[in-house]
Amino acid sequence: MRVTVWNEGVHEQDPTMQVRYPKGMHGAIAGALRERLPGVEVRTATLADPGQGLPDEILDTTDVLLWWGHVAHDEVDDALVARVKERVLAGMGLIVLHSGHFSKIFISLMGTTCSLAWRNEGERELVWTVDPGHPIAEGVPQPIVIRQQEMYGEHFDIPQPDELVFISSFAGGEVFRSGVTYRRGRGKVFYFSPGDQDFPVYHQPEIQLVLANAVTWAAPPAERVLPAVSNPSAEWFLT
Amino acid sequence: MRVTVWNEGVHEQDPTMQVRYPKGMHGAIAGALRERLPGVEVRTATLADPGQGLPDEILDTTDVLLWWGHVAHDEVDDALVARVKERVLAGMGLIVLHSGHFSKIFISLMGTTCSLAWRNEGERELVWTVDPGHPIAEGVPQPIVIRQQEMYGEHFDIPQPDELVFISSFAGGEVFRSGVTYRRGRGKVFYFSPGDQDFPVYHQPEIQLVLANAVTWAAPPAERVLPAVSNPSAEWFLT
Amino acid sequence: MRVTVWNEGVHEQDPTMQVRYPKGMHGAIAGALRERLPGVEVRTATLADPGQGLPDEILDTTDVLLWWGHVAHDEVDDALVARVKERVLAGMGLIVLHSGHFSKIFISLMGTTCSLAWRNEGERELVWTVDPGHPIAEGVPQPIVIRQQEMYGEHFDIPQPDELVFISSFAGGEVFRSGVTYRRGRGKVFYFSPGDQDFPVYHQPEIQLVLANAVTWAAPPAERVLPAVSNPSAEWFLT
Amino acid sequence: MRVTVWNEGVHEQDPTMQVRYPKGMHGAIAGALRERLPGVEVRTATLADPGQGLPDEILDTTDVLLWWGHVAHDEVDDALVARVKERVLAGMGLIVLHSGHFSKIFISLMGTTCSLAWRNEGERELVWTVDPGHPIAEGVPQPIVIRQQEMYGEHFDIPQPDELVFISSFAGGEVFRSGVTYRRGRGKVFYFSPGDQDFPVYHQPEIQLVLANAVTWAAPPAERVLPAVSNPSAEWFLT
Repeated sequence: MRVTVWNEGVHEQDPTMQVRYPKGMHGAIAGALRERLPGVEVRTATLADPGQGLPDEILDTTDVLLWWGHVAHDEVDDALVARVKERVLAGMGLIVLHSGHFSKIFISLMGTTCSLAWRNEGERELVWTVDPGHPIAEGVPQPIVIRQQEMYGEHFDIPQPDELVFISSFAGGEVFRSGVTYRRGRGKVFYFSPGDQDFPVYHQPEIQLVLANAVTWAAPPAERVLPAVSNPSAEWFLT
Repeated sequence: MRVTVWNEGVHEQDPTMQVRYPKGMHGAIAGALRERLPGVEVRTATLADPGQGLPDEILDTTDVLLWWGHVAHDEVDDALVARVKERVLAGMGLIVLHSGHFSKIFISLMGTTCSLAWRNEGERELVWTVDPGHPIAEGVPQPIVIRQQEMYGEHFDIPQPDELVFISSFAGGEVFRSGVTYRRGRGKVFYFSPGDQDFPVYHQPEIQLVLANAVTWAAPPAERVLPAVSNPSAEWFLT
Repeated sequence: MRVTVWNEGVHEQDPTMQVRYPKGMHGAIAGALRERLPGVEVRTATLADPGQGLPDEILDTTDVLLWWGHVAHDEVDDALVARVKERVLAGMGLIVLHSGHFSKIFISLMGTTCSLAWRNEGERELVWTVDPGHPIAEGVPQPIVIRQQEMYGEHFDIPQPDELVFISSFAGGEVFRSGVTYRRGRGKVFYFSPGDQDFPVYHQPEIQLVLANAVTWAAPPAERVLPAVSNPSAEWFLT
Repeated sequence: MRVTVWNEGVHEQDPTMQVRYPKGMHGAIAGALRERLPGVEVRTATLADPGQGLPDEILDTTDVLLWWGHVAHDEVDDALVARVKERVLAGMGLIVLHSGHFSKIFISLMGTTCSLAWRNEGERELVWTVDPGHPIAEGVPQPIVIRQQEMYGEHFDIPQPDELVFISSFAGGEVFRSGVTYRRGRGKVFYFSPGDQDFPVYHQPEIQLVLANAVTWAAPPAERVLPAVSNPSAEWFLT
């Protein structure tokens, strides 16, 4: 299995990020995946890379793509979004992280605004498992305690998830559907909200465990097939 | 439409209940429904009534049944549970309240243990709408604030809901899927956790609004049909 | 309630259509809705009308929009699609008909290709109700028999429906999820496949009944609210 | 992984069965699983065996249980059904076959009548995949053709499935949701209708492939935990 961790990589230019994420958030996530998923090939890519980090030779060899974006959503080429979407519908797994809820690719797959309530005061988040038999929740403590995190709250304008795995509460009292899965075409999609540029959440072992579980879960079926756009059927014709 | 509010009516024998609920919780709920749903006939029934409150002449003329139980779940006759279930599958609406999560009828319709985490320290509950277009949430403030309530927390062992309408958080940090809907046969089922014998929650206008919305939502289709147990089909035979 | 039946209106230029649908498919559908839903205001609109039939003054006064398109999907302005989508997310009901599965608005709300298998040999379609308690199925015979219809078959590349109401079989042996519902934002969406320019399906009473039921079901909640795109939340801040 | 194929084993006493299934349907299924899933331990059990085939020492060492029953549903002890259910909720996979739709264990997990329409004329069944990315459908042809099979038709009175994988059509024109999944507690449940005592369906390679895929899919998570019935929570108490 080959995993690509894509990050817009803009916050990483902020000097304070060097302390929290010296290798960038993508570097921290990729390192955690390499450690927890031996045998899986993990690459990173950023917006500043050639082809915005995802030329065909990368996308075509990616089984699961992780996506972190925030301030540069608009800079991602529409043509790249279309190519990523095509791969997801054909079977590539996609894991959308935190502020990626407003990425073009997530909005495009959901069909809704994907808006939510938010407040950035570094408050405590508790991540509760509501589907303990789900493979993404395997081994995860009840709850995960994140000492400081941006608050994301309801109403989160997404379609009803195929599976609701995690619900978070925040010190301020809000709740959020923080771990949700969807099938789109042949591809599996997982959105997971914990993780923010201002807090070292991606260094937390429980968060890394969720991401590793999600990569394993999102791995594509053996055969990837893009749904045909025109599909005349004659085989069963009225015999 | 005819609504029956069933309550085991055991806590009502406690003198302190006379202060909170002089007409019983069923009386408070029925009064609120009568006020908010003019034209709807609302009756109450309790375990001590003839036929445990739900003889055929009552059940057969009930479009939506509300169910509150706690310490006397085991005293409800299995034959009554079977008769209630038969009506639900044929189209009668069912609204299960609070500790009714452990009622025989709810467990029987869900197929799971319906267990949950709990703590009774009278802490603040916030009820957040996660499906603002749902008719049960219409006009409901975001969030509903309940000053004192028993905590119900995840994991709540229920099947994935057909629709998730409300999620609660508690002062202690727990979350709970506090408003969930299911279709079973032709009947609609709504479980709503706020409301407890120790706190005057059923007097709160926002809670009464949710219950009135839920009664309207759960009203049965025009035709109630019990699914046939044996159903040989010949009409389309190989013509 | 105000309903708008939109049709691209291109097939209507074919002389043979004058026999099947002298007032156009939109005219036939609108007439059926007026007859079955007294008190509901029903308008029609086509691509050739000013503003492609849906200027703001029409859209803003439409509670439920029906959409029929086929050969002119690409001619619908992207800006119009965006405006329709905004209304759906705010609460307007949307009923997508037959070849509208490939309309920009449906694809945009689904996030998938919406492709399917097809064959146009005028074969028998049987429409089976699989959710008999659903209001859209109320009064509908089991099955609806359509003597001649284009075949639409699986795999239909849509997200898992929130509710599956109808499944069709065809004389050739194929099956199709022919009646599916989704919630998107605050809006209800219903896709219904029976109905084609080559066959007089929209004159069939059972099909008209389904469309009238669907209009009633898709009617928006009292309050229409567009999900806010930026939604800072301070009210519950850490008190 | 350890798999137990349970069959009531009553039809097997019919002499004609010796031709179709000389080792019983359970023997045919177990043989197919052994061949397709090397490394998996596959046992068979029948109603006539000690402990009705499923004493604790068998159940406690079963990861996935397959269940075939028809004429002897009522003879299965309620206590055995309760023990099987307890294991499913704790994580054991359960695959219910054909006429097992009326088994006590399936009805108990579904909460509905599980009734359906039927006709036994040995007609052609086509099994169509509607969720091609689902692991149970991996490698399965579109459609599977079963030359002779009992017809099972809608309405099938089950809760809305968590995932709908297969829909069948029959020569008579009926449709049936023939492959559906549910999560109950921590356990995965798959119902699959093809397969009947009167036809050699379980010898068909495509059907064997589906069963092998389903066993792999239904394998339990690493940790099996029975949901606690009473679950007081103090850890997050109001600190």
